[in-house]
Amino acid sequence: MLIVMDHRATPEEIERVVDVIGAMGYGAKPMPGRQRTAIGLVGNDGRIDSARLEGLPGVREVIKVSKPYKQVSREWREEDTLIEFGNGVKLGGPEVVVMAGPCAVEGRDQILDIAAQVREMGATVLRGGAFKPRTSPYSFQGLGAKGLEHLAEARERTGLAIVTEAVDAESAEQVAEHADMIQIGARNMQNYRLLRCAGRAGKPVLLKRGMSATITELLLAAEYLLSEGNAAVALCERGVRSFDQSTRNLLDLTAVPLVKSLTHLPVLADPSHGTGVRAKVTPMARAAVAAGADGLIVEVHPNPPEALSDGAQSLYPAQFGELVGQCGSIAAAIGRSLAALPVGEPAADGPQAATRPPETPA
Amino acid sequence: MLIVMDHRATPEEIERVVDVIGAMGYGAKPMPGRQRTAIGLVGNDGRIDSARLEGLPGVREVIKVSKPYKQVSREWREEDTLIEFGNGVKLGGPEVVVMAGPCAVEGRDQILDIAAQVREMGATVLRGGAFKPRTSPYSFQGLGAKGLEHLAEARERTGLAIVTEAVDAESAEQVAEHADMIQIGARNMQNYRLLRCAGRAGKPVLLKRGMSATITELLLAAEYLLSEGNAAVALCERGVRSFDQSTRNLLDLTAVPLVKSLTHLPVLADPSHGTGVRAKVTPMARAAVAAGADGLIVEVHPNPPEALSDGAQSLYPAQFGELVGQCGSIAAAIGRSLAALPVGEPAADGPQAATRPPETPA
Amino acid sequence: MLIVMDHRATPEEIERVVDVIGAMGYGAKPMPGRQRTAIGLVGNDGRIDSARLEGLPGVREVIKVSKPYKQVSREWREEDTLIEFGNGVKLGGPEVVVMAGPCAVEGRDQILDIAAQVREMGATVLRGGAFKPRTSPYSFQGLGAKGLEHLAEARERTGLAIVTEAVDAESAEQVAEHADMIQIGARNMQNYRLLRCAGRAGKPVLLKRGMSATITELLLAAEYLLSEGNAAVALCERGVRSFDQSTRNLLDLTAVPLVKSLTHLPVLADPSHGTGVRAKVTPMARAAVAAGADGLIVEVHPNPPEALSDGAQSLYPAQFGELVGQCGSIAAAIGRSLAALPVGEPAADGPQAATRPPETPA
Amino acid sequence: MLIVMDHRATPEEIERVVDVIGAMGYGAKPMPGRQRTAIGLVGNDGRIDSARLEGLPGVREVIKVSKPYKQVSREWREEDTLIEFGNGVKLGGPEVVVMAGPCAVEGRDQILDIAAQVREMGATVLRGGAFKPRTSPYSFQGLGAKGLEHLAEARERTGLAIVTEAVDAESAEQVAEHADMIQIGARNMQNYRLLRCAGRAGKPVLLKRGMSATITELLLAAEYLLSEGNAAVALCERGVRSFDQSTRNLLDLTAVPLVKSLTHLPVLADPSHGTGVRAKVTPMARAAVAAGADGLIVEVHPNPPEALSDGAQSLYPAQFGELVGQCGSIAAAIGRSLAALPVGEPAADGPQAATRPPETPA
Repeated sequence: MLIVMDHRATPEEIERVVDVIGAMGYGAKPMPGRQRTAIGLVGNDGRIDSARLEGLPGVREVIKVSKPYKQVSREWREEDTLIEFGNGVKLGGPEVVVMAGPCAVEGRDQILDIAAQVREMGATVLRGGAFKPRTSPYSFQGLGAKGLEHLAEARERTGLAIVTEAVDAESAEQVAEHADMIQIGARNMQNYRLLRCAGRAGKPVLLKRGMSATITELLLAAEYLLSEGNAAVALCERGVRSFDQSTRNLLDLTAVPLVKSLTHLPVLADPSHGTGVRAKVTPMARAAVAAGADGLIVEVHPNPPEALSDGAQSLYPAQFGELVGQCGSIAAAIGRSLAALPVGEPAADGPQAATRPPETPA
Repeated sequence: MLIVMDHRATPEEIERVVDVIGAMGYGAKPMPGRQRTAIGLVGNDGRIDSARLEGLPGVREVIKVSKPYKQVSREWREEDTLIEFGNGVKLGGPEVVVMAGPCAVEGRDQILDIAAQVREMGATVLRGGAFKPRTSPYSFQGLGAKGLEHLAEARERTGLAIVTEAVDAESAEQVAEHADMIQIGARNMQNYRLLRCAGRAGKPVLLKRGMSATITELLLAAEYLLSEGNAAVALCERGVRSFDQSTRNLLDLTAVPLVKSLTHLPVLADPSHGTGVRAKVTPMARAAVAAGADGLIVEVHPNPPEALSDGAQSLYPAQFGELVGQCGSIAAAIGRSLAALPVGEPAADGPQAATRPPETPA
Repeated sequence: MLIVMDHRATPEEIERVVDVIGAMGYGAKPMPGRQRTAIGLVGNDGRIDSARLEGLPGVREVIKVSKPYKQVSREWREEDTLIEFGNGVKLGGPEVVVMAGPCAVEGRDQILDIAAQVREMGATVLRGGAFKPRTSPYSFQGLGAKGLEHLAEARERTGLAIVTEAVDAESAEQVAEHADMIQIGARNMQNYRLLRCAGRAGKPVLLKRGMSATITELLLAAEYLLSEGNAAVALCERGVRSFDQSTRNLLDLTAVPLVKSLTHLPVLADPSHGTGVRAKVTPMARAAVAAGADGLIVEVHPNPPEALSDGAQSLYPAQFGELVGQCGSIAAAIGRSLAALPVGEPAADGPQAATRPPETPA
Repeated sequence: MLIVMDHRATPEEIERVVDVIGAMGYGAKPMPGRQRTAIGLVGNDGRIDSARLEGLPGVREVIKVSKPYKQVSREWREEDTLIEFGNGVKLGGPEVVVMAGPCAVEGRDQILDIAAQVREMGATVLRGGAFKPRTSPYSFQGLGAKGLEHLAEARERTGLAIVTEAVDAESAEQVAEHADMIQIGARNMQNYRLLRCAGRAGKPVLLKRGMSATITELLLAAEYLLSEGNAAVALCERGVRSFDQSTRNLLDLTAVPLVKSLTHLPVLADPSHGTGVRAKVTPMARAAVAAGADGLIVEVHPNPPEALSDGAQSLYPAQFGELVGQCGSIAAAIGRSLAALPVGEPAADGPQAATRPPETPA
């Protein structure tokens, strides 16, 4: 941490900053410059609240050098985190995992139908919202617990692992009981109560980046999960807010290699929300794999024009089949492959034993 | 709603859109143009989910003309909503309400001290966080229920009304019990479970704009509160994300007159979070009043360099005194005045009877 | 400048950075930390190109502490720059200068008409574009040199000073010949050839902030002007790009006190472009004055529905009269007043002698 | 175009809008709705200035349905534009064109050295700035005309085509004389004088997207070039401004398929400026090709730590070799290939005959 003093700061003000740093238990290294003095803080363990220093008289700016997160960092754990689902699929290793399914579980037939289709086309994880956070109180809010049962049944029939969103403490427990992975949506990335619940729920978590979250904030949100003892966390880039409304969001694919260099956690991309436009989903799925994403999460609906939500960005099943084919070629071009389930054979594992969290480093 | 067809859309595709609109119970008015056909949807009651139409073949774009919110709209209720606190202060009327206090309740002495000081300088509502949502899991997270008790004691002693943040269903109930107004923070603006809880908690709500929330999203979040039967809602501009890091956030003061033209709800500004820099708080507080804000919420700390959070943006008490004086002059210049409590005399009302919600229109 | 090394940086890499800093003629002060080493660069005179250091092996980040601008800085010149126009009006002092007029000069009658009206209502500077940079090649592009003649005639008749935009070297010379102040538009803020021309043209310059320019970039653009010897530069906040389309731009009023603390140059606000909506212009003009702006630049048109450009944000003359009245009250509330011309008496000075640049510090 | 009336608009105000539309020569189709009336404007030829309608009393909003650009649109010309350079390389067809070279031409030896290296590794076009627009007036500004001569010599020796930036009318002519393609930089995307000059200069133009330019604005800037008769225009995504400073810019790769669907012009990506970080250039180059880019423009320097500008984002030659290899594999995975020059054999064509512009449609 570097404390930059105002060019009019008095020697007493500089001295006080040095004293406060000392009182906080860190070392202070003043650097008198041509225009102003800067004071280096040595020994930062990532837990310093800079506000205390920012508030001192004569301080112009506090610049953070150490990253404020710890356990999510590559400096904390060098090797990649690997998340293994009950059906044997591993996320975070050499294979790229394709998750697919409708925006929302709309009914038993719909989800069983699309599950069978995406499984046949190459998905290994089924997505589908039972609890839907919607911008308007008048929009369809999801089937709730009933939707979770349909998802569990789809798993029994297809062998797909299940990822679905939790929106509060109660739904986090329900999701943990029925699904293989708890999704935290973009709007809830900084819902810290939910993060703590999900961190203790005993299932892997898929954490989506908030609409205008910086990479540092995304990693700090993940730190909430790890600090509760849950090491099985995957991150997901799903587009950020932009000044241009020609796509629904701006898919920040550079986040993929960037996050992978900063953290050991797997990184996915969501080209469906990331673009909001059906015709752009497949090119951006290809691009995500080319950029190094460990997985994709894609919206597919048996009949998009009839979808109760996100119809405009949902692929038709046949389009999803093409996406899988193209992404497989891209993966091969960079020495990876798509994760696959055995052909036509559902997984035998039940939901409770479904997921093995990663080993924590000794 | 206007459905814009692709220039290559076939007559059958256009016909299908018309049919779907009819099946949804609305009128369709096709407008063949030089380049393409657009279809007007007539009779929109604000509850249409456009995704269904966006997903139809041949549709290029769906443009929303009706606003998706209802009860928060000036078209729903023409006259301003007035929120009256137990100490007689009214928010949303001609008087500008100044809310002040520390970022966090740090202890009994701290909050009683600062409460007395801001009351003497002209504040009528005390702010202070008992539950603190923090970006890092390692930062101070607030005193919780204990903090609420300190706030309640501060009210007894000073007559100030109390506003403090709730972060989940449980804390919303606790806040409703002890405070006069429940604050929903920026990070939770789209935490819909929390909105529904706060909407049913029986106390006025101060809803802060999310970090990258559009005005429409802010109003839709407020709609969640009103749709639960709570008409006593105030909105707060507190700065949005920007590409420039020279201030912590970008205070969007145009939101003040804009929101006031769209909704009947009171609008406040938070120049402390909106700038993040102590020296900019007072000029921006003046600007907010000049722009027409119904209130201010300002961070003041007895000793900012010792603050456990947000020290860099907290005013010293004497600075807050100057702010009140200057904002009083600005209010007078536009024909308003600052709300005031009787000098030196605490309010007699207890916490339960503290707040009178606005009359709902017949 | 602080060079932050990667946590895996070798001692040799650290040594090399120290050597390169030495070879560049500056001092290097290594600070070994718990996680990584940071190296302070001492003696930075603001001319260092950080890219050279960013490119060295083992360097993770280069953090700039010194500001890269010099002559525009308050540290270079403590006292406010004062720009005096030929009609005696001073920009940058205690009086707030109101500039007003149409978006574009559309013809002789239009500009003479509106000039007389805004002068009577309290403007002291007339704005109006002769050269119009337009997003579409098919939009009205301005009257060019003819427009400048009309503006000069309006000055003769009313005593208003003239500010108008230049878009290239040729028009900068023409504008300098006919007007009192050369405007550089937002789209050209980083058109460095134009900046150099305007810096040498011998007239004060009004530099508008670019659409997504940081404050640092705005000040660096002004530095181009000052580095050519032109000390008479005023800056103008006119709204930046935002994710919310509910206003045309996001007027960043915090830029006003922020820029005033960083630089000695006068700062104006443009509430017309800053909001893009007529009904928001007056409240935001009030807010700008309350925030400390040294001037306003406002679009007024004799008949906005007939305007060839920007009709939706142009005020009717009567609305402008109200704006001046309200802003005068706000100015009084903070101890300032609006600059004024003698009632009904045009200035005698000709265009050449019209403007006195500020004294440069010895 | 759709004119949305306020819900309090009077019948007279509606009538007036209809009349004005008629007077402008278009058809008006009023659509009375439940909340308000909207009026469709029929027959829009893309040249309407909406401001005239926005300014009418009772108008709440004007929604543009027709796109404001014409000649750049796929609706104007269905087939892809193909730009052929003097060395036989074609941009916009099935082959992906790799442009590479240093940020700036720093001297004869440097440019000849790097030209030979990138040619051997697979580049077909050489980039390198002779005129450098720099944020600070104190940074290296380029070698100017001398730099162009070095570039021309590099072409003679290697057979690479040359692309380099013009910053004003004068440099546009010089660049047109010596190079194969005139680059318009991001800061000048809306420098309309420069666009008109470049449009008339007789050479293909590479137009980079502005820092916060919408896709519509990018296409309108290209329209300036085409409206001057220059059909050989390529567009380049190079990253936009974002709230997150963890990369220099936010590379918006969705712009690639989006722009390709809206226009017939070739689209490139610049992963060097788009990320600003050397280690992210190659993954994002792969992603750009996977997303469908017609070309890449990449910064490569013989010795990045010694580069006079952009050292941190310049690749070492060996890294560029790997980039070409990986992008070739990605191109193959989607059925394309990289454009290539004959091995070891320089092109014979002189600079004047160097480039064949595309056929304009009859």
